[in-house]
Amino acid sequence: MFGKLDRKRAYEVARSALRTGAISDMQRALKGLPDTGEKANDLRRRLEAALEKTPPGSTHLRKRGTEAMCLSDGLEFSFRIGSTRTPSVFDVRHVGARVTIVLNSEHPFVRRLEASGEWASPAVLTLLAGWARFELEQPDGRLSSQAADARTDWGRAVRRLLDADPKFGDG
Amino acid sequence: MFGKLDRKRAYEVARSALRTGAISDMQRALKGLPDTGEKANDLRRRLEAALEKTPPGSTHLRKRGTEAMCLSDGLEFSFRIGSTRTPSVFDVRHVGARVTIVLNSEHPFVRRLEASGEWASPAVLTLLAGWARFELEQPDGRLSSQAADARTDWGRAVRRLLDADPKFGDG
Repeated sequence: MFGKLDRKRAYEVARSALRTGAISDMQRALKGLPDTGEKANDLRRRLEAALEKTPPGSTHLRKRGTEAMCLSDGLEFSFRIGSTRTPSVFDVRHVGARVTIVLNSEHPFVRRLEASGEWASPAVLTLLAGWARFELEQPDGRLSSQAADARTDWGRAVRRLLDADPKFGDG
Repeated sequence: MFGKLDRKRAYEVARSALRTGAISDMQRALKGLPDTGEKANDLRRRLEAALEKTPPGSTHLRKRGTEAMCLSDGLEFSFRIGSTRTPSVFDVRHVGARVTIVLNSEHPFVRRLEASGEWASPAVLTLLAGWARFELEQPDGRLSSQAADARTDWGRAVRRLLDADPKFGDG
């Protein structure tokens, strides 16, 4: 699955990893970049410098009230419930390798999660963090806004499901 | 939130609802379509005919081993774990108002859900069913494949999170 990347893809992954700070992507890119060439050498130097600065490994989730955070693959994910003023289930914000996922306190899905006391379940956080990672790996511009638009429309669809059946999925 | 639709949007929602069979969308479209005009009258007749045939209301989730199903808003969602031969966490298939969501048995996220014995938790099923509804509301063609591509890349991102930290999100 994660064999050597072809060259074109290695350049893409290198640029994306420099933007996101994901350790595994930096390592994959380093393996896939060609051994010579000015562009490859420049990216290689920047990746190696970034890897040196990146905190290693991962930490388990720490919860504190309506906040939770964990470090994984060099990315720091923090989750909190808050007002997003959007139709989405969650919003994604990031500054470098710090990814903040705000669960929309006005969305019926999030209200239900909160009421269940399990808003920070591993399954939900993993799905949302995976989406956030996908979204922030999109190059800026058209692809990035397409991903954000999909998240918004997804949030609308979840709301319509819950409007029709507030206990959707309950046994 | 769900006030009267503007005309252009009412036509779109009408066509999407005829494709998906979602009761609430049929009702919204009927309210938003103009009172006169051949195209509007034709859609109105087809929506009314479809509403008459649609089973009412919703049923709670019924689980049986690795299968679960529920009816919501005229859509029949069934969930099962199976082989999808894709990088996605789940695949979406639909025939009319029957939506089948196959959770990819080879994806580490699904393996972990299975191992936890909670693969059919309301939160996870609601997020996936909402996504499926979003995806099947896309008109065929470019938008539809963009949504499916996003689902695939999302699945890859979740896999990379779990490769880096198999217990991501655990307390």
